[in-house]
Amino acid sequence: MAQFINSREATVTEAIDGMIQTSGGALARLDGYPHIRVVLRTDWDRSKVALVSGGGSGHEPAHAGFVGQGMLTAAVCGDVFASPSVDAVLAGVLAVTGPAGCLLIVKNYTGDRLNFGLAAERARAFGLNVNMVIVDDDIALPNLPQPRGVAGTLFVHKIAGAMAESGASLADVTAAAERVIAGTRSIGMSLDTCTVPGSPKEDRIGAGKAELGLGIHGEAGVEQVDYHNAAQAMAAVTAKLAAVMDDTPHVVLLNNLGGATELEMSILANDLVKSAIGRHLKLIVGPAAMMTSLDMRGFSVSVFPLAAEDHAWLSAPCAPSAWPGCKAITPVRVLDLPDGLRPIRPIPSEHKATAEFLTRCCQILIDAEADLNALDAKSGDGDTGSTLAGASRALIGALDRLPLADHTQLYRAIGQELTQTMGGSSGVLLAIFFTAAGDAASSGLSMVAALQEGLARMQRIGGAQLGDRTMVDALKPALDELQAKGIAEAAIVARAGAEHTATIRHAKAGRASYINADQLEGHVDPGAEAVARLFERLAS
Amino acid sequence: MAQFINSREATVTEAIDGMIQTSGGALARLDGYPHIRVVLRTDWDRSKVALVSGGGSGHEPAHAGFVGQGMLTAAVCGDVFASPSVDAVLAGVLAVTGPAGCLLIVKNYTGDRLNFGLAAERARAFGLNVNMVIVDDDIALPNLPQPRGVAGTLFVHKIAGAMAESGASLADVTAAAERVIAGTRSIGMSLDTCTVPGSPKEDRIGAGKAELGLGIHGEAGVEQVDYHNAAQAMAAVTAKLAAVMDDTPHVVLLNNLGGATELEMSILANDLVKSAIGRHLKLIVGPAAMMTSLDMRGFSVSVFPLAAEDHAWLSAPCAPSAWPGCKAITPVRVLDLPDGLRPIRPIPSEHKATAEFLTRCCQILIDAEADLNALDAKSGDGDTGSTLAGASRALIGALDRLPLADHTQLYRAIGQELTQTMGGSSGVLLAIFFTAAGDAASSGLSMVAALQEGLARMQRIGGAQLGDRTMVDALKPALDELQAKGIAEAAIVARAGAEHTATIRHAKAGRASYINADQLEGHVDPGAEAVARLFERLAS
Repeated sequence: MAQFINSREATVTEAIDGMIQTSGGALARLDGYPHIRVVLRTDWDRSKVALVSGGGSGHEPAHAGFVGQGMLTAAVCGDVFASPSVDAVLAGVLAVTGPAGCLLIVKNYTGDRLNFGLAAERARAFGLNVNMVIVDDDIALPNLPQPRGVAGTLFVHKIAGAMAESGASLADVTAAAERVIAGTRSIGMSLDTCTVPGSPKEDRIGAGKAELGLGIHGEAGVEQVDYHNAAQAMAAVTAKLAAVMDDTPHVVLLNNLGGATELEMSILANDLVKSAIGRHLKLIVGPAAMMTSLDMRGFSVSVFPLAAEDHAWLSAPCAPSAWPGCKAITPVRVLDLPDGLRPIRPIPSEHKATAEFLTRCCQILIDAEADLNALDAKSGDGDTGSTLAGASRALIGALDRLPLADHTQLYRAIGQELTQTMGGSSGVLLAIFFTAAGDAASSGLSMVAALQEGLARMQRIGGAQLGDRTMVDALKPALDELQAKGIAEAAIVARAGAEHTATIRHAKAGRASYINADQLEGHVDPGAEAVARLFERLAS
Repeated sequence: MAQFINSREATVTEAIDGMIQTSGGALARLDGYPHIRVVLRTDWDRSKVALVSGGGSGHEPAHAGFVGQGMLTAAVCGDVFASPSVDAVLAGVLAVTGPAGCLLIVKNYTGDRLNFGLAAERARAFGLNVNMVIVDDDIALPNLPQPRGVAGTLFVHKIAGAMAESGASLADVTAAAERVIAGTRSIGMSLDTCTVPGSPKEDRIGAGKAELGLGIHGEAGVEQVDYHNAAQAMAAVTAKLAAVMDDTPHVVLLNNLGGATELEMSILANDLVKSAIGRHLKLIVGPAAMMTSLDMRGFSVSVFPLAAEDHAWLSAPCAPSAWPGCKAITPVRVLDLPDGLRPIRPIPSEHKATAEFLTRCCQILIDAEADLNALDAKSGDGDTGSTLAGASRALIGALDRLPLADHTQLYRAIGQELTQTMGGSSGVLLAIFFTAAGDAASSGLSMVAALQEGLARMQRIGGAQLGDRTMVDALKPALDELQAKGIAEAAIVARAGAEHTATIRHAKAGRASYINADQLEGHVDPGAEAVARLFERLAS
């Protein structure tokens, strides 16, 4: 699978530069590429406790995406899935740490522990006040003495970040971070492996399988399980969490591991709320991609028992747009359908001349059925005649419920009938034609002028212009001439317009626009033919 | 490719419910599932112009993700890649439209035009003031009379949304929307097709190829081009845009079509700023997934010439967290590396006894090289002896630059030397041990107590506890006994601790934790053996 990179070596530095240039000036980096890749807030004055996190890249938006007011002060970025060096971490710490001190937030991987740990020692040797916490929220392996740090790290970033922003001391921020770490539990599931830039993709997970309990570096999950659907996947994940949760209210973080679509993540959110742990979940962060594993089509769920103060820290405003907010989980609010969705039927009325005229129009189209179908077969699926004839028959059958005596309502009523009886785009277009004409008639236009207005609306919505090889090529000149001179002249220009369509090689709207030009030439558009036929018969 | 869905039919309704439940009460939906899927703001009082958009699903976060204060009032969601029905659109319009009227923002697809168009007509028949604009920003086919509507739609949502929120009239909002549409140009590129839920994935794009000028419904791009790297891909896309851009300042929107990683999108952002059109780009929205095509690994770029008032509308706060903000494009700000990154070398000093003691320690480890390598070969890669011997030789060679007479500085200096001369985790761990010991010594602890403190730090950072089958099993009792009684007693407990490691079947830290228990049993841990050997020889 190709990827949008330029070279494996430049992947992280180019990504950081792209991020900084599009941060609106909120972010900067330290000098020292390519070894030192540290992203920092530009609005930092060292007056508060600094928070530094980081680790291997490939987890975007973590960690640089969470640098900003109310979250991290700096992120130290390693290569993809590789810890940054001691020097890089030390550079970050030295760059941001003032008298209030610095907290390092490190995920529990040997490389990160060691490099951040030694950097902390070296920073202390400079007299800086540096604490370090290690996040180990993964419960994939229940008895592992060294659980991995995964997406639950975001709880630490946000709560410690909000506290630090509020001016809390390093001791208090560290204690809160340790409390959050002690309470946070995470587990993930994936349907596929991830693609490391510049490397071939490992094809480890077979069809019908998912990995449960996986890390964020492409390592294999603890077990492969059968995969059926989203609800069952969420049930498997939440069953693991339920085993380690108490009955208190929790905040949950629903993390996209990178490759799941937003549609899938919303479905998973729905399944999460309905799951066995759903009743304990009061607040949610996400669903969103926060701690990813490149393009892995998977998700993780992190839970943390909510202490009284945490709601405020989690909800406090922060600058990084990668933080999706922390929101109350609420039931689906369903609003009643508005009145008027079912159109009010006009009061039927009788008007003999109108009934006869409508019937005559319909009969003309019914008589043309076979001819129009044959024409349509040249450029479409051969059903124009049947579609129009069917709608015409239905309209004749509906005459006794139409407001025949109320001409301003009649157009709208015909539009309604066509909506229900005539399928496809042409049905909607003719419904728009008549409904818009009714709209225009009710505001005082003459019946023909109202039809002209209806046609204008239909053209605007359907997008067909004169010369696009549609019924418009016959109908527009016909209505114009009908308004100006009369039915006889209208019939003449309708026929001329229809015949012209046979010379148009490139249809620009409607279905015929997908047809080869050679197939079209010499054949009149069936919609235009129907219009010409109607006007000619009415004029005769 | 399996996906996190439950059924093709329930995909959209479940996703909407998931979204609403995690919106913190900001969103609701209309009754009428499954046919009517309308997501609305709950804080809407109909006092301002309503904005209704929507279309087929599969473009998340568009459109429901952009419902909220300052953007859309409601989103009408169709099936994946299929227009919603007239009734669904009408329900949305009727539900939100007050005296100020409603603007429908529709992407230029026949189904959407017709269904939204007829719904608008029917709403007007109820006396509602409804306008409709059609977004046609795609320039993939330069002469197509009906260009598609793609990600540029977001400019319309944001600018019209901010204006409507400010109380602008329907006429003014509509005029602004039409102005934005007239100026917006978009084009996309993808490395892969998308996976429609419940359908097999089409494998259309060969290795080494990319599609340029594609829509957002999985339809084929206008052309397949050779794919080399991100910079060349961005150059191809921006070349198309350059041909239709003038020299005025523009805002650009960098959209993830769904399947590109954030790492890739940041690299593309970097390439965009460096591209031929980069100098015209003043503001950027993204990079972010805004108008996706499910999981398509691709991106699109939309540009719009910036009028004076647009900066404020684009930057105005809005509720939907899917809107990534609109930020100034700025150069990469590079901050100087902090002082002290290169540790200040302590002033060398002479101290004969210390030099002799250090040399003796090093020589003991050098002499143990072969034995330790042999032990390590049982559980590791057989280099523990060489690693320690190499570091010992280097330390002997460094004696004349060490502060031998300043014992509080000496530990730190040894830590620095080990950082540079001893590779791997063990080098970092021993560097932490000595650096932390130096830190402790400088705050007044005795030399042995400082080593105990150094060991505690090393354990905390490395994660090894007593009984985990590491050097700690010998070193911790030895230091405790050294502090309490003396070197002879220390040697005895070191040896006992080392021998005990041979009985530990499950290593819990370090590399041996990955080794089969049967391979470990009966073999002393080489690190613990090194410690025991050192104390025994020093005591003898």
